[in-house]
Amino acid sequence: MLASISVWFSLMVLGCAEQPRQVERFGMAIGLKTDGIDEYKRLHADVWPDVLRMIRECNIHNYSIYLAEIDNDEYCLFGYFEYTGEDFKKDMEKMKADPATRRWWKHTDPLQFKLPAAGEDEWWHNLQEVFHAD
Amino acid sequence: MLASISVWFSLMVLGCAEQPRQVERFGMAIGLKTDGIDEYKRLHADVWPDVLRMIRECNIHNYSIYLAEIDNDEYCLFGYFEYTGEDFKKDMEKMKADPATRRWWKHTDPLQFKLPAAGEDEWWHNLQEVFHAD
Repeated sequence: MLASISVWFSLMVLGCAEQPRQVERFGMAIGLKTDGIDEYKRLHADVWPDVLRMIRECNIHNYSIYLAEIDNDEYCLFGYFEYTGEDFKKDMEKMKADPATRRWWKHTDPLQFKLPAAGEDEWWHNLQEVFHAD
Repeated sequence: MLASISVWFSLMVLGCAEQPRQVERFGMAIGLKTDGIDEYKRLHADVWPDVLRMIRECNIHNYSIYLAEIDNDEYCLFGYFEYTGEDFKKDMEKMKADPATRRWWKHTDPLQFKLPAAGEDEWWHNLQEVFHAD
């Protein structure tokens, strides 16, 4: 009996030990047209469930987007998310191939514009992390 | 015996259940002078331990700062952090009163500039969250 309790205890402890999750952080930015702000907000107040599902399936978590008035009447969006998968490029290709996400982007892309600093292969511009504290 | 195992089991489950931590997310932005970029990066590659300690003591976690070239040769910083305390204003006053943090800001403040959209009581401009997915 004591032995079985001991095994049970060990399993319980193992069961609740949190697995260290590997997290890669991303910060990104893109321009937002002044006359696109209202529509962008409207869309993001009620993001399609299929789009949210694909975000999760592509191992993206804790994803926030902020609106910033960066100069007088000039706006951009800042995004922050945490990636927990093992192949970011592959997951992004999966997202790009998802029909619901592609339809979603047909609504959001015309509201945005690429920043001058964004590379040829970028839409959102990937930002350099200069500080992090857990 | 069964009763005591049952109590023990209940305690174990309670013991490993994660406490839901209340998290308030913040996104913020500030300008960075072009000729301040190198010094800002140098400082933030090795932030003073007393400054990091005060950040933690003020209940700020998962704090990242990104550098963004927002237009040709125009830069800003995008900050993201999670606040887990119960009185943000009080914690920020504590931080502002900390001698090490005040000395730190004497190095970083001259490298930055307020965005036009920032309020009178702001240095970093607090941004509006338009989207979040866990």
